[in-house]
Amino acid sequence: MVTRRILLLSNSTLHNGKYLEWAKSEILDFLGRKNVKRILFVPYASSKHDDYTNTVKNALEPWGFQVEGVHAVPDPVRAVENAESIFVGGGNTFLLLKSLYENGLIPAIQKQVLENGMPYIGSSAGTNVATTSINTTNDMPIVYPPSFDALKLVPFNINPHYIDPDVNSTHMGETREKRISEYHEIEGSPPVLGLREGSLLFLEGEEVVLKGYHKARLFVRGKEPVEYNVGSDLSFLLSSK
Amino acid sequence: MVTRRILLLSNSTLHNGKYLEWAKSEILDFLGRKNVKRILFVPYASSKHDDYTNTVKNALEPWGFQVEGVHAVPDPVRAVENAESIFVGGGNTFLLLKSLYENGLIPAIQKQVLENGMPYIGSSAGTNVATTSINTTNDMPIVYPPSFDALKLVPFNINPHYIDPDVNSTHMGETREKRISEYHEIEGSPPVLGLREGSLLFLEGEEVVLKGYHKARLFVRGKEPVEYNVGSDLSFLLSSK
Repeated sequence: MVTRRILLLSNSTLHNGKYLEWAKSEILDFLGRKNVKRILFVPYASSKHDDYTNTVKNALEPWGFQVEGVHAVPDPVRAVENAESIFVGGGNTFLLLKSLYENGLIPAIQKQVLENGMPYIGSSAGTNVATTSINTTNDMPIVYPPSFDALKLVPFNINPHYIDPDVNSTHMGETREKRISEYHEIEGSPPVLGLREGSLLFLEGEEVVLKGYHKARLFVRGKEPVEYNVGSDLSFLLSSK
Repeated sequence: MVTRRILLLSNSTLHNGKYLEWAKSEILDFLGRKNVKRILFVPYASSKHDDYTNTVKNALEPWGFQVEGVHAVPDPVRAVENAESIFVGGGNTFLLLKSLYENGLIPAIQKQVLENGMPYIGSSAGTNVATTSINTTNDMPIVYPPSFDALKLVPFNINPHYIDPDVNSTHMGETREKRISEYHEIEGSPPVLGLREGSLLFLEGEEVVLKGYHKARLFVRGKEPVEYNVGSDLSFLLSSK
């Protein structure tokens, strides 16, 4: 059985930080283990594909990787089939998922990651689309995708940029926790991992570990939320139904 | 030509306030002008229809109105057709819109409001669904509606609970303004009125006035955002394309 290898970042940039800098050592380790030199970048979460790809090139090429934007190739499906690794960047999750469907990349990425073991890195929206669905994105639904079902590389959902309630706020919009609890009123809704900025999930085969700088908050339908420390083994999430 | 009458609230409850209390005089005035005594309440934005309807009854019955939940009648379409007025409450916009479609209420409400002049009150999600689409809701997409197209009672969009960027925040999630600007990268996207909590839009025929306690921020594709004071005549929004 092929080993799936997935790195899911809550976010790309920390306050006052450079693009992807906070996760540099994890990314180097993740790709270095497989001797990856080429990264296929998916800029669909932004409407400015060239600009976005240049940002990623400027960040990752000095680290020794060759970056190519999937929007710039004649056959995106083929590019996925031939990719050494794939990085799906953040932006708007609805725009991203719609473009993945329109370009036929959902089955192509699934096959490459789940059957051929191609390393997948996602950040923010790119993390959302790696999970079962985009039902727990924070983004504004600026376009209508053909489904909220996502790549299903893992059998649970993630809420990236997870943020704790601000006890001093007078704003009456729902807290993140309240929104997730509303999702969990739906029968059959999977677990949701609230991944704070500066946190990531490292998945290799049947092993899932929380890495980065912050605890993560796990929401399971019908249960109280639970906090997990950095370094926690979250492999049990792969048995989620 | 029949006069459409619509009251769109940013939110139902202010911090430390009671349900709908901040908008009481506007609601009394709006319904009183037409001698309305009965309100058909739509609780679909919540999954707890009975509880939600009781909250609304407890708030509005002391003001002299008779409240009935549309979920509790055998024929919701008929209930809309026979309603004196309708109030669509807040909660999750996706859940609300999906339920409106599933119960066949989209055309029924459109006809009643636009052709028969039935007064419509919306709050938060109930305001979102009154506009052209739910593309500018803040809610989490916990269910998949058959479309993001909404009731189109007005030819523009609203962002309820509009909130200004927090200059002290280190959180890297997009500001509300940034999210709306991403929506406006899409060709043909209509104007979006950012309605702050404690603000409402009063619409009668071809006249639209901003009421409540705060300025509103209008976003138009390709233009700089503009602030409008309480009392501003926003009737020009009815000519939006």
